[in-house]
Amino acid sequence: MTRNIYDRDDFFAGYSRLPRSVKGLRAAPEWPSLRAMLPHLTGLRVLDLGCGFGWFCRWARENGAAHVVGMDVSEKMLARACADTDDDRIHYLRADLERVKLPRASFDLAYSSLAFHYVKNLDPLMSQIYQALRARGRLVFSVEHPIYTAPSDPKWSHATWPVDGYLDEGPRTTDWLAKAVIKQHRMVASYINMLLGVGFSISKIEEWGPTARQIKSQPSWALERERPAFLLVAARR
Amino acid sequence: MTRNIYDRDDFFAGYSRLPRSVKGLRAAPEWPSLRAMLPHLTGLRVLDLGCGFGWFCRWARENGAAHVVGMDVSEKMLARACADTDDDRIHYLRADLERVKLPRASFDLAYSSLAFHYVKNLDPLMSQIYQALRARGRLVFSVEHPIYTAPSDPKWSHATWPVDGYLDEGPRTTDWLAKAVIKQHRMVASYINMLLGVGFSISKIEEWGPTARQIKSQPSWALERERPAFLLVAARR
Repeated sequence: MTRNIYDRDDFFAGYSRLPRSVKGLRAAPEWPSLRAMLPHLTGLRVLDLGCGFGWFCRWARENGAAHVVGMDVSEKMLARACADTDDDRIHYLRADLERVKLPRASFDLAYSSLAFHYVKNLDPLMSQIYQALRARGRLVFSVEHPIYTAPSDPKWSHATWPVDGYLDEGPRTTDWLAKAVIKQHRMVASYINMLLGVGFSISKIEEWGPTARQIKSQPSWALERERPAFLLVAARR
Repeated sequence: MTRNIYDRDDFFAGYSRLPRSVKGLRAAPEWPSLRAMLPHLTGLRVLDLGCGFGWFCRWARENGAAHVVGMDVSEKMLARACADTDDDRIHYLRADLERVKLPRASFDLAYSSLAFHYVKNLDPLMSQIYQALRARGRLVFSVEHPIYTAPSDPKWSHATWPVDGYLDEGPRTTDWLAKAVIKQHRMVASYINMLLGVGFSISKIEEWGPTARQIKSQPSWALERERPAFLLVAARR
């Protein structure tokens, strides 16, 4: 089941201590870029795939969304999301992104932050999202960038990032917050062609790295300009 | 002036000895992928930007194109293209891709192989191409992949490719066929967003590496699956 890693005690404990888990969206350095890809939310029906603690769901409601559905596979994350949310226009549902069935033409915006790289079979999910959007509905999402996920040994060496295996898509096992976390490596082209294949048109992509201003306040982030950590994509039905 | 490197004696001599210069398209390993992105050419008006020795121009005519215009900045390459071509429906023109003005609504297909990464200001060229295409016209091109162009020291190390500077776009100087050849590094996102910005929609992209079959006949190409050498893009007006 997708992302069940989040229900493992060691991973959940580590994840819960990350700045973005404690402080929410404003502690995620890529958030300003992702936010800039979003439409005005006033009156929109929003779906958040891999909603975690519900930070985005609450933000969407504070910014005018009419209704928000947050989905996640992790019981622990949903429990905290529910505890932290007091809004009857936000609904949290437990769902496995590998096999979720979404209602037809029900949302204006589908959003997902750093969840799709856990999904093994992304193509069926993309089809589900496409048919769940109304005409001209949008999909905005982030994933770990393929340059970031490709390497067999993802460690900086003299400020260079050792890319190998880029064209060989599939699982990558890394120690991140816990031992043996599995993520799916796929190419930039695969994300793009998958979207085009189910009918989306591409609106914008961004290969995220910190701005000069962000580096000034967090000098250790400078390395993150050597290779992009995240891929952000905006598409339209 | 763009690509004037091709008129330098040392570079031209080296380039002229490359398999793709001697044997044409079939010696370019990415050609089958690029060809698969092309529409049926029957009756189409075709523009080749950076046509070199004219291999693609002649191929396009052999495959039904009504008229082909090949443009290049290199006098030496155009001289050989003219010498190798006997077809009054192919016209070669000397043009600098940095500042070329193209006629409006005159082509059904614009094609370019491994030329755009020499162009410093690509945005005006993309606008020119867009307006030079008829309604629903296509642009199909290849460039050196950004993962390939990014590194400050682009050398394999234990079968890994040392990526740095990916987010810092601009000139990269390498020794390829001659000393101090300058190419422009830009991100995948920049190519895509530039196309979207002038009005194109994206049809397909490919991050090229050799197939298992190609590696079987050329075992030394196996390394080329560790990181993509070329980015291929198909877009539509």
